[in-house]
Amino acid sequence: VTRESPLPSAVLGAGGYIGQHFVRLLADHPLFGPPRLVAGPKSAGKTLADVWQLEEPPPAELAETRLVRLSPAGLARSGVRVAFGAIPSGTAGPLETECRRRGLAVFSNAADHRMDRDVPLLVPEANGVVLERLRARGSDRGLLVTNPNCTTAGLVLALKPVWELLGPKTVHVASYQALSGAGFPGVPSLSIADNVVPFIREEEEKVEREARRILRPDPGSGAADLVTPFVVHCARVSVREGHLEAVTVEAGARPRQQALADAWRSFDPLADRYLPTAPHPPISLRAEEDRPQPLRDRWAGSPTRARGMAVTIGRVRWTPPYLRFFALVHNAVRGGAGGSVLNAELAESYGLLDGARREVGS
Amino acid sequence: VTRESPLPSAVLGAGGYIGQHFVRLLADHPLFGPPRLVAGPKSAGKTLADVWQLEEPPPAELAETRLVRLSPAGLARSGVRVAFGAIPSGTAGPLETECRRRGLAVFSNAADHRMDRDVPLLVPEANGVVLERLRARGSDRGLLVTNPNCTTAGLVLALKPVWELLGPKTVHVASYQALSGAGFPGVPSLSIADNVVPFIREEEEKVEREARRILRPDPGSGAADLVTPFVVHCARVSVREGHLEAVTVEAGARPRQQALADAWRSFDPLADRYLPTAPHPPISLRAEEDRPQPLRDRWAGSPTRARGMAVTIGRVRWTPPYLRFFALVHNAVRGGAGGSVLNAELAESYGLLDGARREVGS
Amino acid sequence: VTRESPLPSAVLGAGGYIGQHFVRLLADHPLFGPPRLVAGPKSAGKTLADVWQLEEPPPAELAETRLVRLSPAGLARSGVRVAFGAIPSGTAGPLETECRRRGLAVFSNAADHRMDRDVPLLVPEANGVVLERLRARGSDRGLLVTNPNCTTAGLVLALKPVWELLGPKTVHVASYQALSGAGFPGVPSLSIADNVVPFIREEEEKVEREARRILRPDPGSGAADLVTPFVVHCARVSVREGHLEAVTVEAGARPRQQALADAWRSFDPLADRYLPTAPHPPISLRAEEDRPQPLRDRWAGSPTRARGMAVTIGRVRWTPPYLRFFALVHNAVRGGAGGSVLNAELAESYGLLDGARREVGS
Amino acid sequence: VTRESPLPSAVLGAGGYIGQHFVRLLADHPLFGPPRLVAGPKSAGKTLADVWQLEEPPPAELAETRLVRLSPAGLARSGVRVAFGAIPSGTAGPLETECRRRGLAVFSNAADHRMDRDVPLLVPEANGVVLERLRARGSDRGLLVTNPNCTTAGLVLALKPVWELLGPKTVHVASYQALSGAGFPGVPSLSIADNVVPFIREEEEKVEREARRILRPDPGSGAADLVTPFVVHCARVSVREGHLEAVTVEAGARPRQQALADAWRSFDPLADRYLPTAPHPPISLRAEEDRPQPLRDRWAGSPTRARGMAVTIGRVRWTPPYLRFFALVHNAVRGGAGGSVLNAELAESYGLLDGARREVGS
Repeated sequence: VTRESPLPSAVLGAGGYIGQHFVRLLADHPLFGPPRLVAGPKSAGKTLADVWQLEEPPPAELAETRLVRLSPAGLARSGVRVAFGAIPSGTAGPLETECRRRGLAVFSNAADHRMDRDVPLLVPEANGVVLERLRARGSDRGLLVTNPNCTTAGLVLALKPVWELLGPKTVHVASYQALSGAGFPGVPSLSIADNVVPFIREEEEKVEREARRILRPDPGSGAADLVTPFVVHCARVSVREGHLEAVTVEAGARPRQQALADAWRSFDPLADRYLPTAPHPPISLRAEEDRPQPLRDRWAGSPTRARGMAVTIGRVRWTPPYLRFFALVHNAVRGGAGGSVLNAELAESYGLLDGARREVGS
Repeated sequence: VTRESPLPSAVLGAGGYIGQHFVRLLADHPLFGPPRLVAGPKSAGKTLADVWQLEEPPPAELAETRLVRLSPAGLARSGVRVAFGAIPSGTAGPLETECRRRGLAVFSNAADHRMDRDVPLLVPEANGVVLERLRARGSDRGLLVTNPNCTTAGLVLALKPVWELLGPKTVHVASYQALSGAGFPGVPSLSIADNVVPFIREEEEKVEREARRILRPDPGSGAADLVTPFVVHCARVSVREGHLEAVTVEAGARPRQQALADAWRSFDPLADRYLPTAPHPPISLRAEEDRPQPLRDRWAGSPTRARGMAVTIGRVRWTPPYLRFFALVHNAVRGGAGGSVLNAELAESYGLLDGARREVGS
Repeated sequence: VTRESPLPSAVLGAGGYIGQHFVRLLADHPLFGPPRLVAGPKSAGKTLADVWQLEEPPPAELAETRLVRLSPAGLARSGVRVAFGAIPSGTAGPLETECRRRGLAVFSNAADHRMDRDVPLLVPEANGVVLERLRARGSDRGLLVTNPNCTTAGLVLALKPVWELLGPKTVHVASYQALSGAGFPGVPSLSIADNVVPFIREEEEKVEREARRILRPDPGSGAADLVTPFVVHCARVSVREGHLEAVTVEAGARPRQQALADAWRSFDPLADRYLPTAPHPPISLRAEEDRPQPLRDRWAGSPTRARGMAVTIGRVRWTPPYLRFFALVHNAVRGGAGGSVLNAELAESYGLLDGARREVGS
Repeated sequence: VTRESPLPSAVLGAGGYIGQHFVRLLADHPLFGPPRLVAGPKSAGKTLADVWQLEEPPPAELAETRLVRLSPAGLARSGVRVAFGAIPSGTAGPLETECRRRGLAVFSNAADHRMDRDVPLLVPEANGVVLERLRARGSDRGLLVTNPNCTTAGLVLALKPVWELLGPKTVHVASYQALSGAGFPGVPSLSIADNVVPFIREEEEKVEREARRILRPDPGSGAADLVTPFVVHCARVSVREGHLEAVTVEAGARPRQQALADAWRSFDPLADRYLPTAPHPPISLRAEEDRPQPLRDRWAGSPTRARGMAVTIGRVRWTPPYLRFFALVHNAVRGGAGGSVLNAELAESYGLLDGARREVGS
């Protein structure tokens, strides 16, 4: 396929923390970039540099671009075909529906539509097959695809390669979640400095239901979600980026330890597709006694464009029937903006954006 | 009992972090204070003020006291009867044995003798009865009593009141442990700033075996330890003091939620003894959606002398068969120095220090 | 003077960070406590425990008290005679004026009236004499006294004892200010974790003008403010409580180093008054090579009621004409609530609250 | 000049924090990389991955390379021509002297030889001319060039462009220094969490004498150092990387504010040389009200190879005679490893490494 130009895209909520990670990833993206910067009343009118919160500087070519307010209708009229959603859950839902109705392909990080039966909840390496059925169904004009919440994204990637081997009876999770998961302004410094907060609203419920949806046996079918219980504790710690998770699987089967390591190491279901943001391999399995760590492992993932897209696993202890390990996911990249960008790349590779492309060409 | 004067005591390892908490608690203690300050070659010769690491200032009356080196023989000769052990595990073992052999009552925070069959591993509210048997056995001159590691201390106190009600099949724990658990200099700032370290050497093993010893059905007998599995993850977070623990009990029974709350609220097995450092009640059960927190709950416990001795429990979620909650223990007080001071107070109330007292009187 | 009962008092803005320090200090205050808890619409109706942000627990006897909304008229009607102001600057001004008009004695932490010619800007040890003139002027019914901003409070106390000795030509200050200086929610954690923010709105200007007003040669007169330049940099660091200040005085005179130490050590202008919250001495001069530190020195001050009221000075280097030192002040205690409480105690000792008292008696 | 291959280089002290920044910068350096990894007994024998402390992963091609012990003689025998010194001050001195005696060109980050009359103390944009004289003197075989301490590096770069305009009478500095300035293990977490430490051994003295040496009027001559006083306070804050400095210049002259901005913006004395690690421009002058910040500005500098090599200046306030601003320097890059790499590039461009090159070729 020859591609003459990227598909016109936009970041909705470009002023927020996840929105800025979208902008960072899309600025020079071969399929979608550079994006329009769309924002709400608080940020609209400011330049990207004015609102920038990330450690690395804003993309030079967009730094002085002003964020604009645009309705779904305005987006469609202005030629945007692919919208990346970084609007807070609650506000996002109706807006995304309207964008889709007007023919846009929407890749959303918000929770509103994640459990809708007709909306894929997608982690490409774990349940990419859901897009096959979507294609089979024939596409109406618009498209809406969601990624799971940040903690779930890391969890399902860590579990997927060993799921069949273990035949899990229960999955126990305790999270150590980063500040950026709450966006900006988010957590007040006086609430978290020298402290841990063992509560994140709705988070445990999200992990339980989203993980069960993504890991169901035939994810592309209308099959019922898993019944395996996920028993989850979520807590906020004073770390900027990178969610750590302590995971215990109570297993029904007793594979050899080597079989588990092999399953993690050889896992790469996207190996044969050219997706710019896909990490190869998607799992980094570490043997050190004290890894993974947010500071040292949050940027795992190669090639360069996939920095922060790999999940790191370590401290694997297999004392049947209990498999224990820690997993680490960059909450704002694999668990946020990067997850949605990869979803869009997968959709494009399935031809699901061809309608959008044709319209652009016409 | 009329008490004319405190028993002569000493803190072994007074230069370290736990040692300083011992000094803080004992400076004006009605039974044992003020203590001699004994230290190793690094700290001996310095004043308490020189080595002080805690946020609150050193006790005024001891601030200018110099730490001294003293052998077990020297301690005995100088009239010390009760020794509080804050020496690092590994070094502590032989020294404590020798102190006991020379007739001292040793209350130790070190791990070396915790699993010795003839040494009580004691948390007064959870298994105080072990001292009864010790008394029944008749005492040789010396005495050695240990407290468990900091994480275990909070865990067994949280579990004890509801243990029989729940009939646990498995206990899952993930910890968020404070920096002071590693003492001083301990964790380098570059290792933990903006980070979590999911490894503390030997910690998970200690929690598993110590909790099973303390919670066994007939703790005072030579009964075998529990077989209930404890499945534990330990991690270090950037908090100064206060270990948080995410606990899930897979229960065999299905009590009503109110019965659990009642059990926690009414738990106070030391209510009838006068022990200066005992918190009443020992469990603080909180209803807020976001507690316990290290910063806000580490100093729980009244009366004033028992600050930091109560365990705080919150976020109780009972979805049978899984009971989930968070528990918070001040690692250096209830989980360290304070635990040993309370152990000594209990031993005194059982008459186990009478030998020591007589000798002092003679 | 026989005191049968405390004067009825109220904390305005009891839901905020400084307000809570007021409540902590006043709960059992011999002259003023316990206070009414007055709050704005966000906190009114909640209990003190609901809104509590400090590390130590709320005073037990007030924990379940609900915060109420009360107008100045309502305050006066309900018998309140002394109001402690912890309302944010900007909102506070007109409210405080109205309280005073209705006969209350107002001790305010807000900036609005600090530079008013007829309103004392008071740090008792530095310019307590301003109250003498106020008394001499004869009192109208109400009273309004302000304390300076937190950084200034520490600075003027540190400078006052050596000011005449040094004959300063210029004072250079760079601050390391704590998070609590911005109140709650205040600084977002993502703005300050692993960071320093070299800007606090209006702060440098406040320090410059307030220090010059307090340190003027005849503070009780209408004398012009000092002309000595204060050249100030203010920055926010990730510390919960305690402002550190690096101070360089370019001196006009050359006293001996010992004279400076003596001046600091012997300074205690309130020695002869009985003021419950006054620290004796108000300056703690330390000789260690690495003090003062926020963590270790913020609670300096004795007796117990004066914890956090002393300023700690250390690292004194006198290389004429430059005197360098670091000073540390608890921003929310001496630099906030405690400063105003001490102001009220001084006013009471000058008889300036007698009118209020009489009315109460009538 | 055609360059067929890089000069064989080594990093001395590759296991330390600065050493690892050297390795990161040199791994694919066009003139010097990849380096041999030389270490002391603690790290020798381990792989680079084993000892790695930085946030970004170790260079893939060196990750599994083992660190080796090598004497100066061994280095010379093994063909190394350029040695980058990251050995702690104190130990470094004699070793560097011996390396130079054996013909190596040494670029050192240690303090030992910084004030030696025959050893350049070099910041290329500030006093690059000192290398001219070195060339003029004719070179003996070896070479030893030092960079200043991290705080000085940022300070002299910030001051150089405006020095002549201002005619400074005094320079006042207060620093907010990052944890990594102390290397690893460095500062214990319990010493600095929720704290600031207002003392760094020898640091204030180093800044004062090194800044005066680098900024002297005719730096290439044997001219005496500046007499302008530098009055300095140094403190450690809880930030991983990036030293912030509050600077006040008491000026003798009164240039217009625009002239100062122009001087900073147009400053680029290396514009015409091709030095791979040189940032263009070396000063980033920001207009925002709250910059520079360690988190957001430490990686300033372009092109990509110069990330962390630019100094950021902000909050410029010119109220004659006082010029105030904040400056930010990445302590481990421009103030450490990167500074020495740039020194080596400048030396190479002056032909000072030709001897080394010829020997390699022969």
